[in-house]
Amino acid sequence: MMTLDERFKALKTENAPGQEFRQDVSDLSTIMRGEKLEGDPVDFSHGDVDAFTPTPGATKTWLKGYEVGGEQAYTQYRGEAKILEGLADRLGVFTGSAILADQELIITPGTQCALFLALGSTVEAGAKVAVIEPDYFANRKLVKYFGGVVVPIPLSYQDSMSESGPDLCILEEAFKDGTKTLVFSTPNNPTGVVYTKDTIDKISELTAKYNVTVIVDQLYSRLLYSGETYTHLRACKIVPKNMITIMGPSKTESLSGFRLGTAFGTASIIERMEQLQAIVSLRAAGYNQAVLKDWLSEPKEWMQERIKAHEAIRDELLDIFNSAGLSTAKPQAGSYLFPQLPDLDIDLKSFVKLLRYQASVTVTPGAEFGPTTINSIRLNFSQDHAKAIRAAKRIVEMVQRYTK
Amino acid sequence: MMTLDERFKALKTENAPGQEFRQDVSDLSTIMRGEKLEGDPVDFSHGDVDAFTPTPGATKTWLKGYEVGGEQAYTQYRGEAKILEGLADRLGVFTGSAILADQELIITPGTQCALFLALGSTVEAGAKVAVIEPDYFANRKLVKYFGGVVVPIPLSYQDSMSESGPDLCILEEAFKDGTKTLVFSTPNNPTGVVYTKDTIDKISELTAKYNVTVIVDQLYSRLLYSGETYTHLRACKIVPKNMITIMGPSKTESLSGFRLGTAFGTASIIERMEQLQAIVSLRAAGYNQAVLKDWLSEPKEWMQERIKAHEAIRDELLDIFNSAGLSTAKPQAGSYLFPQLPDLDIDLKSFVKLLRYQASVTVTPGAEFGPTTINSIRLNFSQDHAKAIRAAKRIVEMVQRYTK
Repeated sequence: MMTLDERFKALKTENAPGQEFRQDVSDLSTIMRGEKLEGDPVDFSHGDVDAFTPTPGATKTWLKGYEVGGEQAYTQYRGEAKILEGLADRLGVFTGSAILADQELIITPGTQCALFLALGSTVEAGAKVAVIEPDYFANRKLVKYFGGVVVPIPLSYQDSMSESGPDLCILEEAFKDGTKTLVFSTPNNPTGVVYTKDTIDKISELTAKYNVTVIVDQLYSRLLYSGETYTHLRACKIVPKNMITIMGPSKTESLSGFRLGTAFGTASIIERMEQLQAIVSLRAAGYNQAVLKDWLSEPKEWMQERIKAHEAIRDELLDIFNSAGLSTAKPQAGSYLFPQLPDLDIDLKSFVKLLRYQASVTVTPGAEFGPTTINSIRLNFSQDHAKAIRAAKRIVEMVQRYTK
Repeated sequence: MMTLDERFKALKTENAPGQEFRQDVSDLSTIMRGEKLEGDPVDFSHGDVDAFTPTPGATKTWLKGYEVGGEQAYTQYRGEAKILEGLADRLGVFTGSAILADQELIITPGTQCALFLALGSTVEAGAKVAVIEPDYFANRKLVKYFGGVVVPIPLSYQDSMSESGPDLCILEEAFKDGTKTLVFSTPNNPTGVVYTKDTIDKISELTAKYNVTVIVDQLYSRLLYSGETYTHLRACKIVPKNMITIMGPSKTESLSGFRLGTAFGTASIIERMEQLQAIVSLRAAGYNQAVLKDWLSEPKEWMQERIKAHEAIRDELLDIFNSAGLSTAKPQAGSYLFPQLPDLDIDLKSFVKLLRYQASVTVTPGAEFGPTTINSIRLNFSQDHAKAIRAAKRIVEMVQRYTK
């Protein structure tokens, strides 16, 4: 049985995105090379909602929700019934598989909470959970917190797109060896790899065959770049009996300040998630739930424009990094870049601190996403285009300064 | 080691406040006596924020927060630094003991989440936790969920005020017997008992002596009725080393729809709570945090008026219930009444369902608050005055119909 100390050892947040200011930078002057690099500070640890503002009309819809009063303030724990109905329709269409509004859907305070509730409702203490490496940093923390055992599944992402994806042989071996849960994100965070149709089909087959519970985080699935296709696990011919899909409006739609997420799938898991939510935080903030009324029905041109703008930043950043020898896979969706750095004269943790201190650039160290990517850094490039480009050039300059 | 099924057994929400509509009422017609009782529906399971509206200017402050943009959307996990500073000052003054803004305070998505994080950060699996009976229904659920063992401490509340309070002998026995955590609410939910100065002094002494971690829920401490005094555990001469106080603006201030809570106290526990919050839901919704800027600095007359209005409802309801033989203690603070019903011809669960079905009155069954109060019902009387009075009369009429 895990002690609390052991549970919390997995939860250190010092290097987590958004918490960097709590770091001690007093010792950096002794290792700093050259002067500070001037430029507008850019925080690549998360998207900039001032550069890409929330969906049009968000405050208007919020105010309308507020004016509804008590009924909007005190919804059922899983979310307001009418809002769930609309969401079930639109999410069902988007993911290619119908959703029962009153049984298969829950609104959560952010997709982070959706992940917490989904894993908390399915991971037994001591159970083996397949976790992709690299993948969203909270997945492994959550598995460990709930007492599960992380079974790592390597992800290829540096090769050509057609060969990228998780190692399906190792995945099947894990299932044969008793792994009962699989959690993964597609598009993958931090690399932007979108799992191919073949991969998703194979995952659906394997998880159905071995009766594995699947939690798939599709947070970035709407920000899909030109020429790419996206396959929804939910829409496969064969699907596992226990499956939860997670989406939310925090990224493409820049609604993170509202803390809204959704999870949908197997009714018995949704039921447990609601029971757990009841003791965690009762419900997503009532008035904020109203904002979901506009979600997945934004003006089409607005969405296209948003994707186009991100694609332009992506392409220019890719060019800067790859030209400078910072090998970077091309993200197929989402707004993350995951450049691999050459061998530096200092450890990556110190380099990331120096980037912030010396070059006013905040990034997230690759070690947060798995033990195999300790030489990479993650950038969320949902930023002001010009500032992001200048900041990327400062990263390159910094890499040169700290390379033998 | 607990299985997931065992963990979730403690979390059933069927009879939890706000979830009543999920109950099956199809079988009630066979046991219903007489016709339906006409009248405006009143939902006593929570306060009516349409009758007692949110603090003045809440939406204006929220909009200002929204307009701040990214900095307000993406705060550090424990909450926006400037807002924490203001809160630390005002909470320090209110509770009579200074708070370090950057170390001893966290903003959470509701006080429910504050309780979740506080117990999740302190309760070891298998550890004994002293829980008052009756007390807030989630306390026992949380202790069980985290694998703790509930050590029940009886609360007197039917006697004269001076004798009300927890049984301190049993409490000390529990500490001698290895209980390492105490969680309680004052004013007590569901009875409205405010722990006396003597009681709080004794609790501070005992918990310091036996090195017990204390989590005290003071959610209703601002709604204090005329002639009553409130003692803050934090302000005692001797305090336990590990102590967390929980407060929030959901009740007296009717800001529940924003899901905001605060917890303050021992820095090392606050640190853990932030680490846990990082995987639970990252932070309280960024824009909503802004609303806390106005908290604890409302217009004085507004607060006095609000307390006076609740006191008037309290007194009239007490008169109705006690005159009809439904023994009801006088709440010293907060907006809960906890009448004890006479022996009914049907079980209380069915009676509560009938109240809703036949008399349009929603209440929470006493069994939710502990195993010793199965003949009581809880009412949150923060309601439209006239409607609440008429609904109380329907409760009395219903009790008469279902009594031998």
